[in-house]
Amino acid sequence: MSNTIGKLFTVTSYGESHGKCIGVIVDGCPAGLSIDETDIQSELDKRRPGNSTAATGRREDDRVEILSGISGGFTTGAPVCLMVRNKDVDDSDYEKIRGKLRPGHADYTAHVKYGGYQDWRGGGRFSGRITAGFVMAGAIAKKALGTIGTEIFAHTVEIGGIAARTTSYEEIKQAVNDPLRCANAAASKRMNDLIAEVKKEGDSLGGIIECIAVNVPVGLGEPVFDNLDGELARALLAIPAVKGVEFGTGFTSARLKGSQNNDLFRVEKGRVITTSNNSGGINGGISNGMPLVVKVAVKPTSSIAIEQDTVDIEKMENTTITIGGRHDVCIVPRAVVVVEAMMAVTLCDFAMRAGYIPRVIK
Amino acid sequence: MSNTIGKLFTVTSYGESHGKCIGVIVDGCPAGLSIDETDIQSELDKRRPGNSTAATGRREDDRVEILSGISGGFTTGAPVCLMVRNKDVDDSDYEKIRGKLRPGHADYTAHVKYGGYQDWRGGGRFSGRITAGFVMAGAIAKKALGTIGTEIFAHTVEIGGIAARTTSYEEIKQAVNDPLRCANAAASKRMNDLIAEVKKEGDSLGGIIECIAVNVPVGLGEPVFDNLDGELARALLAIPAVKGVEFGTGFTSARLKGSQNNDLFRVEKGRVITTSNNSGGINGGISNGMPLVVKVAVKPTSSIAIEQDTVDIEKMENTTITIGGRHDVCIVPRAVVVVEAMMAVTLCDFAMRAGYIPRVIK
Amino acid sequence: MSNTIGKLFTVTSYGESHGKCIGVIVDGCPAGLSIDETDIQSELDKRRPGNSTAATGRREDDRVEILSGISGGFTTGAPVCLMVRNKDVDDSDYEKIRGKLRPGHADYTAHVKYGGYQDWRGGGRFSGRITAGFVMAGAIAKKALGTIGTEIFAHTVEIGGIAARTTSYEEIKQAVNDPLRCANAAASKRMNDLIAEVKKEGDSLGGIIECIAVNVPVGLGEPVFDNLDGELARALLAIPAVKGVEFGTGFTSARLKGSQNNDLFRVEKGRVITTSNNSGGINGGISNGMPLVVKVAVKPTSSIAIEQDTVDIEKMENTTITIGGRHDVCIVPRAVVVVEAMMAVTLCDFAMRAGYIPRVIK
Amino acid sequence: MSNTIGKLFTVTSYGESHGKCIGVIVDGCPAGLSIDETDIQSELDKRRPGNSTAATGRREDDRVEILSGISGGFTTGAPVCLMVRNKDVDDSDYEKIRGKLRPGHADYTAHVKYGGYQDWRGGGRFSGRITAGFVMAGAIAKKALGTIGTEIFAHTVEIGGIAARTTSYEEIKQAVNDPLRCANAAASKRMNDLIAEVKKEGDSLGGIIECIAVNVPVGLGEPVFDNLDGELARALLAIPAVKGVEFGTGFTSARLKGSQNNDLFRVEKGRVITTSNNSGGINGGISNGMPLVVKVAVKPTSSIAIEQDTVDIEKMENTTITIGGRHDVCIVPRAVVVVEAMMAVTLCDFAMRAGYIPRVIK
Repeated sequence: MSNTIGKLFTVTSYGESHGKCIGVIVDGCPAGLSIDETDIQSELDKRRPGNSTAATGRREDDRVEILSGISGGFTTGAPVCLMVRNKDVDDSDYEKIRGKLRPGHADYTAHVKYGGYQDWRGGGRFSGRITAGFVMAGAIAKKALGTIGTEIFAHTVEIGGIAARTTSYEEIKQAVNDPLRCANAAASKRMNDLIAEVKKEGDSLGGIIECIAVNVPVGLGEPVFDNLDGELARALLAIPAVKGVEFGTGFTSARLKGSQNNDLFRVEKGRVITTSNNSGGINGGISNGMPLVVKVAVKPTSSIAIEQDTVDIEKMENTTITIGGRHDVCIVPRAVVVVEAMMAVTLCDFAMRAGYIPRVIK
Repeated sequence: MSNTIGKLFTVTSYGESHGKCIGVIVDGCPAGLSIDETDIQSELDKRRPGNSTAATGRREDDRVEILSGISGGFTTGAPVCLMVRNKDVDDSDYEKIRGKLRPGHADYTAHVKYGGYQDWRGGGRFSGRITAGFVMAGAIAKKALGTIGTEIFAHTVEIGGIAARTTSYEEIKQAVNDPLRCANAAASKRMNDLIAEVKKEGDSLGGIIECIAVNVPVGLGEPVFDNLDGELARALLAIPAVKGVEFGTGFTSARLKGSQNNDLFRVEKGRVITTSNNSGGINGGISNGMPLVVKVAVKPTSSIAIEQDTVDIEKMENTTITIGGRHDVCIVPRAVVVVEAMMAVTLCDFAMRAGYIPRVIK
Repeated sequence: MSNTIGKLFTVTSYGESHGKCIGVIVDGCPAGLSIDETDIQSELDKRRPGNSTAATGRREDDRVEILSGISGGFTTGAPVCLMVRNKDVDDSDYEKIRGKLRPGHADYTAHVKYGGYQDWRGGGRFSGRITAGFVMAGAIAKKALGTIGTEIFAHTVEIGGIAARTTSYEEIKQAVNDPLRCANAAASKRMNDLIAEVKKEGDSLGGIIECIAVNVPVGLGEPVFDNLDGELARALLAIPAVKGVEFGTGFTSARLKGSQNNDLFRVEKGRVITTSNNSGGINGGISNGMPLVVKVAVKPTSSIAIEQDTVDIEKMENTTITIGGRHDVCIVPRAVVVVEAMMAVTLCDFAMRAGYIPRVIK
Repeated sequence: MSNTIGKLFTVTSYGESHGKCIGVIVDGCPAGLSIDETDIQSELDKRRPGNSTAATGRREDDRVEILSGISGGFTTGAPVCLMVRNKDVDDSDYEKIRGKLRPGHADYTAHVKYGGYQDWRGGGRFSGRITAGFVMAGAIAKKALGTIGTEIFAHTVEIGGIAARTTSYEEIKQAVNDPLRCANAAASKRMNDLIAEVKKEGDSLGGIIECIAVNVPVGLGEPVFDNLDGELARALLAIPAVKGVEFGTGFTSARLKGSQNNDLFRVEKGRVITTSNNSGGINGGISNGMPLVVKVAVKPTSSIAIEQDTVDIEKMENTTITIGGRHDVCIVPRAVVVVEAMMAVTLCDFAMRAGYIPRVIK
């Protein structure tokens, strides 16, 4: 396994769904960053289930514990180890299906890769629950980015094919107050109705999340292999269920002409800007100072209540599976803050590499 | 800059569009791999321009020179340094537009990041020409993957909105014989007509490339941060003009229900397979033994002959630009072998990390 | 900071001397390795103070807690997070000297590097206490190396200028039973007397530790920059107070002729061996199958009870310091198991890179 | 193999003793650094053989060729690829001993590690000749360090047991003008006589090199695993024949008391200094602003003209070997500039990581 990401600002993830805890070590964080439990807790709270139709019945307090690296309300320059304990662990549903591969999950690949030794309870290391660690790391990264004015906000732009139009960044920033993290109230209502309906069927839904970063310095990204878009894509694809990433017009740009897709440069108030932002703020793998815009495709939740064909890997024979347990019908709303976190972690690393964020915050 | 990719099988890129050469160092390649100039040249030839309406008028022989690491027809275990010289360098077109930012290019971001010291001729380090190095590295990776039976083939699935349907992998493998790398002759014809038309307008086109790998071992990928999909995305986004990446059903999966998108497991001839492949061969960031399927969105070529608004960065004032030089109307056909190369490089690294490809080929 | 070491078998250290805990994450450990608390605890116990004249009065239970990555007595392939809590924390001695730079310590360099935000209590992140984490990681590495028969043992070869001669590896392995980790009983007695004497003076002593690994596979090490000796040196110099590293005859070889220092090759029982081992088992940065032999120089403990000149960094003025607290007169005995741990961690990483230790232990 | 070192300022080595060339890629070098062939050539010239009794008869021009990354006399921010061609290649002496393991060399370990595919001519990848690449990288690093006033100089302090005393840094800097790189003329004379004598015997000598860096910023080094001393040791042990590394008093400190070895802090002209420098300028893995002082032990040249017992690895039988070819009796003088180079490369990387050297030199 390879559970560390980042070059100067590095994040190491640990913990399993049904083990003792979920956690993260943030190493390379600048010293002197003002941060406490509240900053981290408020981000974790955005990820908690139970506040919408879409979410799992599993209840976790997810109270952050700071184990190291923060002293007197400031980072010390030492590795910051953070942890949330797993409390609401119920293995019984999983015992029933032991050995049966859950379609869409990593049960089979993990079984082969780890020789059957993997912790299979609740998906173990492959559970969406590990993203609690991502969010804690993201909280620190957001704070560090805040010192240079960079702000990140994501929102639900599509669930089950229902799209949500938005007209301004101010509007998008309000998405955090919507249970589905959707900035368009009418769309949110329709999404919610669809989710309720699909829940009754025992089925699940996917969707699309858009993430935006503003006040991004020009020059983040290290071509040709540590491109800003490449590293962002890698970080975002570490979120379970993400199956696609596009920047700016992305796949749509494949159908445009150069004259339609090119962003034209202009000088405005002494700064170079572009009059459109089809590139999503990235040219040649480097941020250009315009808002960063990335979209991720989230597949429908793999765990569904409907009976499915599958294989019992211990007996190596065909069988069927009906997944009980408590699952989100649609993880999109809870993944929104996770997307923000991975964006923050990546930008923070590049901002340190480019020297925008110093080694000591003054 | 950060011009190395891979952990055990690493690729370091060097060279500029209008400098002396373009090259690559492949380090960590297994010893005892049979390879010579021909193997590398045949891949380079697939990338050469000039054999379709779509391509630039720039003519480069692109003859590979092996500088180190191969002796007597076999890799020695030492770093393999490869080079193609730049011959057909014409700076005059670029001199005319010096200081003017070419819309869609990295001129502005490079200018800020490298303080005006970047080699701006022909895009310098940001030119598509550096992908000649990627292709040379890919040639070695393909050879190494060949020792375990893994095969990679990509093709054009869309240009300018014209989609090409295919029905079998055998058909897709024939795409290499089509000037547009399109496996569907009728679609290729329509694409070609559209390219010819857009060329007259002085405009450009984008498209979509699909890449497939078959006989991929189960277990490639190192979650949670070195996922197979994450690393592939990063590698593919290093190709200039790629703006989106999706695996399997990708963005389409966001509109499906779990019951539609889940791939069901079955035992077939003693092996576990899935009856569909919506995941694109990846579960939980790890290959599941089904064909790997990834699509990349290629934006329309940024260099167009149409006059565009822009900024003169030296004078910091608004102006217009008309780009001469020789450019591909659509780079999709030439990028097909580059996509294969980056897929090969990534898979080879993971196959070494998982122990499928040994340190010495016997 | 940069608290991760290793490429495939990676160790990330966290925690501070006077914080909540000291810990380590071992990532990339093969799945299926049989290990439990006892295996780790027995190594930690070798490092505990209080069992010799040389050691500090600080009493820590140092009970290991496994937070993740081990289930049912086997590693799962997921990151293994281990922790020992700090219990016997007494800040009062440190409060008295706050702001005064302790000679020989990292107080000054940490102050500059972390802008005064570093946790200065007890040396914080620079305390020898963090090596408890190294020892826990070493316990896992030793277990993994055990699966291929590699064995590691270190011992005290010199304290305060008193050298201990040994005649066999069997004798050296008994050093673990000596309070000073010295395999020569007579020398141990003399060292102990010297330590008692120096303790009365309020002064401290240094020494030399030799570490040996037997049954090391041929071929560990990745030239030219990830040499076995280079990576070992780096790992050993991470131990506070280590100021020099030499392999085989080391600095002595500088005074020998080639004809004296070269190890001659012979075939013995179908294996290639050398008739001497002046190289310390390493040729060209790669293990040659002979015992690995490395020596490290440990400087005298920096904390002494004698008054010393120094600077008050907050007032930027000259002053004096008398260090109270509880300190080892000589850390050599306690460092012996730490040296073994760093050797184990490094060899385990290389054994995985070379394919000797597989990804799943069967 | 693993031929890249450094995190932000990275050096990748390629080439073999008897292949086409020896080279290096420097990636991550700040843009805007003024450098041309002369700067690099003058460093290469210091390493050339033939100007002392000690050196090999092999004559190489070693003319640097800049393949990429430098334009108009300045670095561009792109990877700098440098090369010297191998001209004076004579394989005949090596053909005679093919299959026979040269004692002290990497012939055996390379044979096992690379399955017999390694380029064995002249030591191939394990030849001291690859350090020509190190020196070229060092030339760039020295230039970059020069922008912050850091200066590096090494000298021969011992050959064959003859020690050279020095009294000042000014004296040491003159060592570059001595054929043996020894700052003490009398000692140099005696060393030279000894070398001449040993040459007649067909034997070889080792020695000790000291390297000093002055005007080093406080704060270089990234504990706990990327310590300045650890990374320096690793870099220096990449030089063939180096078998030991010590910082400051090093192994001698093991025999001192704390009261003797501790460096006392004082405020002098508003700066914190230490009144002695037994630490060699490093506390807790971080530079403290005093001169960096490191010594390396160089073993006697392995290639000697005296007949030695060995093994024919192809026949797996005992035999003898008499090594012809052209070899340095003592490589110490030529290694002096190589030691400087590896010191420069390491310091430059850390100076970038700590933000002392910016991404663009202004």
